[in-house]
Amino acid sequence: MGAPSISPETGGGEVAHRWTVSMGETMTTVEYGAKPLELNLTVDLCQFLADVGFADLPPEAVHEGRRGVLDWLGCALAGSQGETVSRTLAVLGAVSGKPQATVIARDRKLGLLEAPIANGQMGHLLDYDDTHMDGVILHTSSPVLAALFALAEARPVDGKRFITAYVIGFEAGIRAGKAAPRHHDGGWHLTGTLGTIAAGLASARLLGLDARQTTFAAGIAGTQSSGMQQNRGTMCKSFHAGRAASNGVLAALLAEQGFDSSPEILEGKRGFTRIYSTETDIDALLAGLGEDWLIVKNGYKPYACGIVQHPLIDAMIALSKEAGVVAEDIASVEAKVHPGVITITGVEEPETGLKSKFSLTHSAAVAYIDHNAGIGQYTDARAVAPEVAALRRKITPLPDDGYRRDEAEASLVTASGDRHSVHIDHATGTAANPMSDDALETKFLANAEPVLGAARARELADAVWRLDALEDAGDILALCATAKA
Amino acid sequence: MGAPSISPETGGGEVAHRWTVSMGETMTTVEYGAKPLELNLTVDLCQFLADVGFADLPPEAVHEGRRGVLDWLGCALAGSQGETVSRTLAVLGAVSGKPQATVIARDRKLGLLEAPIANGQMGHLLDYDDTHMDGVILHTSSPVLAALFALAEARPVDGKRFITAYVIGFEAGIRAGKAAPRHHDGGWHLTGTLGTIAAGLASARLLGLDARQTTFAAGIAGTQSSGMQQNRGTMCKSFHAGRAASNGVLAALLAEQGFDSSPEILEGKRGFTRIYSTETDIDALLAGLGEDWLIVKNGYKPYACGIVQHPLIDAMIALSKEAGVVAEDIASVEAKVHPGVITITGVEEPETGLKSKFSLTHSAAVAYIDHNAGIGQYTDARAVAPEVAALRRKITPLPDDGYRRDEAEASLVTASGDRHSVHIDHATGTAANPMSDDALETKFLANAEPVLGAARARELADAVWRLDALEDAGDILALCATAKA
Repeated sequence: MGAPSISPETGGGEVAHRWTVSMGETMTTVEYGAKPLELNLTVDLCQFLADVGFADLPPEAVHEGRRGVLDWLGCALAGSQGETVSRTLAVLGAVSGKPQATVIARDRKLGLLEAPIANGQMGHLLDYDDTHMDGVILHTSSPVLAALFALAEARPVDGKRFITAYVIGFEAGIRAGKAAPRHHDGGWHLTGTLGTIAAGLASARLLGLDARQTTFAAGIAGTQSSGMQQNRGTMCKSFHAGRAASNGVLAALLAEQGFDSSPEILEGKRGFTRIYSTETDIDALLAGLGEDWLIVKNGYKPYACGIVQHPLIDAMIALSKEAGVVAEDIASVEAKVHPGVITITGVEEPETGLKSKFSLTHSAAVAYIDHNAGIGQYTDARAVAPEVAALRRKITPLPDDGYRRDEAEASLVTASGDRHSVHIDHATGTAANPMSDDALETKFLANAEPVLGAARARELADAVWRLDALEDAGDILALCATAKA
Repeated sequence: MGAPSISPETGGGEVAHRWTVSMGETMTTVEYGAKPLELNLTVDLCQFLADVGFADLPPEAVHEGRRGVLDWLGCALAGSQGETVSRTLAVLGAVSGKPQATVIARDRKLGLLEAPIANGQMGHLLDYDDTHMDGVILHTSSPVLAALFALAEARPVDGKRFITAYVIGFEAGIRAGKAAPRHHDGGWHLTGTLGTIAAGLASARLLGLDARQTTFAAGIAGTQSSGMQQNRGTMCKSFHAGRAASNGVLAALLAEQGFDSSPEILEGKRGFTRIYSTETDIDALLAGLGEDWLIVKNGYKPYACGIVQHPLIDAMIALSKEAGVVAEDIASVEAKVHPGVITITGVEEPETGLKSKFSLTHSAAVAYIDHNAGIGQYTDARAVAPEVAALRRKITPLPDDGYRRDEAEASLVTASGDRHSVHIDHATGTAANPMSDDALETKFLANAEPVLGAARARELADAVWRLDALEDAGDILALCATAKA
């Protein structure tokens, strides 16, 4: 399985993809390619995604698939009992009829379009889920796996097909994001927008759609892409992941019926990379396709907050251990970070646990005092704890254009004038400094055990580690259906 | 009922809206207004929309409500049997369980989130539905009424409440659009994007949500806004209207549960008017609120294509009648139109009926030959008819910056050198040259009779004309539930 036969550099001079489609209400047959498309990028990408098989995946992509599923399930379980999810379920339960797909740890099933909303939301609820870091900051798994697990229950597939579809979700979502370089700066919540495309094309692969249907799915998914950063700090942020998952499922199911869409949804003049970003890099859509598997660059969060804060958290934990200065004796802290960090996490005085996740100085303060930044560091109580508030007021973030996003330096000055400093090159949990399998499993068990109990959490972890050997990927979610008594 | 107590000009120096909300997973209580919002525009708008009652509406707004419902039902009935709708229903029927809401003329019910997808799509399927023309080109009724009729079946309301909610859909959707003046140019399909906001706030009003919940609904709806112009000419275009309707229903139902969102979803730094448009006119959000009722400026389509083509169709019909020149004797036609018309309807050689709706020269040609531009003029057969193709190749669109969107001039030169010209100031069906009640009813009956039969179509029209007197607005849709045997 190689890259498509047409590279974007050829400019589509030759058109490989001629197929007959039914368009619009009148069902007339036309030929895509009869009038050559300018570039055929969406078509080429979808042809590739439809053709990829498990055997085409390198071992590291497969293993990252196992790791990603394990980590996401832990995050979804940790979020499953949340009040936000309860409010969503109060609505979905009232409108959904057919018990087609498991809602994680809620002892209920919902319809194929509703369960993904709930599961996607719980996966992203605590901001603890995996984050792709190579140019596109995307929580890929919440939309993609919430879609795939629902579909896999209605249309059983083996573990190999499931992992293949999951891998394809990364290819689709990240590539769309790389081709729209100003998308995040534009104010969009990528987990909602790119997540819809990722979920739609992963779902298409799980259903085994052909290249034509997969192209339709891309267009139906893309045209539903939404999610505004304006809703940070509200219940909508995690909802975006669920909305994306559900939209992706619907896109694939409609495409399976021959429901059509633009074959240029990504590169077209009014397509995704044009209207969701003020800059377009269409070469990125196909660059390295079939060689660079983007799931391999997935990052996991050791800390329960936005990943942009993680390098500074690493630095503050190390600084605390190395300097051995109690917080009360600190006069001031300078925190050098990538400039983008400040705009995203600039809350200075968080009144709530939720808001404290968007406060870089809060994260730095709890990391110094608690040597951790887990769920316990982002509670309402911790947000207003006097010793935390006192330290965070001493911390000054310093944006530095020369810093990467996974780099930080923390420097403290004590009341008596001593100085200590720690520099972090690559934050824990990034591709350059990945969490080990053991560390990931430890995080998973900490997330899953309170909900499932130790025995079932262990059983689930074991099942995920051998996911590609399962005859029915749905066995995984069956283990998550109910919380412990 | 007047305008809100704070106008945007005050800059929010005084904050009238202080209320306690629960935000995010941690359910902490915070005060909006404790740290004053910059402008409070979304909050002010939603306060107004939540407080408006039927008694506040002027008679012309109420009557336009009756007219809008009648016209939309006709369009939905005309689209109800379409193959595109069948494909959508094949999916929705497989995933939807509870029979909560009627699918128009399909003899079935679907869940509250699914029926609006089907009904919204059929309303917009033939591009024959109403179009607001005062600055914002929006097919308001397909998303709004598909949402409201579904909700009204689950939560019965009287006709007065129903009309009030419908009127509010216009206020919300059009105002959001006016505040984002470059939104359409940006490549968005407004019926999907603004339609979601319109449907969400209309649904909030139908449910009787308070101002706080209504603000939540605005944020949940806005963050789901989607729909790309890239999908013009595909099945997705009409799907956008249904997707918007369903998203609006979900937004209102979630808001009713206290599911929160940004209170600045429209004016915030990363809010709708900022990220969906390269220009922002936030004063437009509240300008004339409670005085200028935007539904009054709704336009209806005498012709079954995009309304931007209507002035030229008027001109070509009049020219044909006045000049009395047969098409074969025409040497050339010059068609002066607003420049925006060309970019939207530039298809030169439509191969299908669907594509012919996006061909200005096709519309002009059939108007000249057939003296009409109804459903029969946009069939596959008519798109490729030799006499139509011959005439459309003689027509040259001339963009004129001095022309309004509802203005056009058609000038022909015969083979023997004679010249004839017709100028249209305001197209039929616009606010400045509205269709009469009789003309609207004639259009409705032509749309409805083939589906419902003459007797039920008549009964339905009579019911809609007295909608505000109905105790249960759901009586309307009950008359549309099944097609004639």
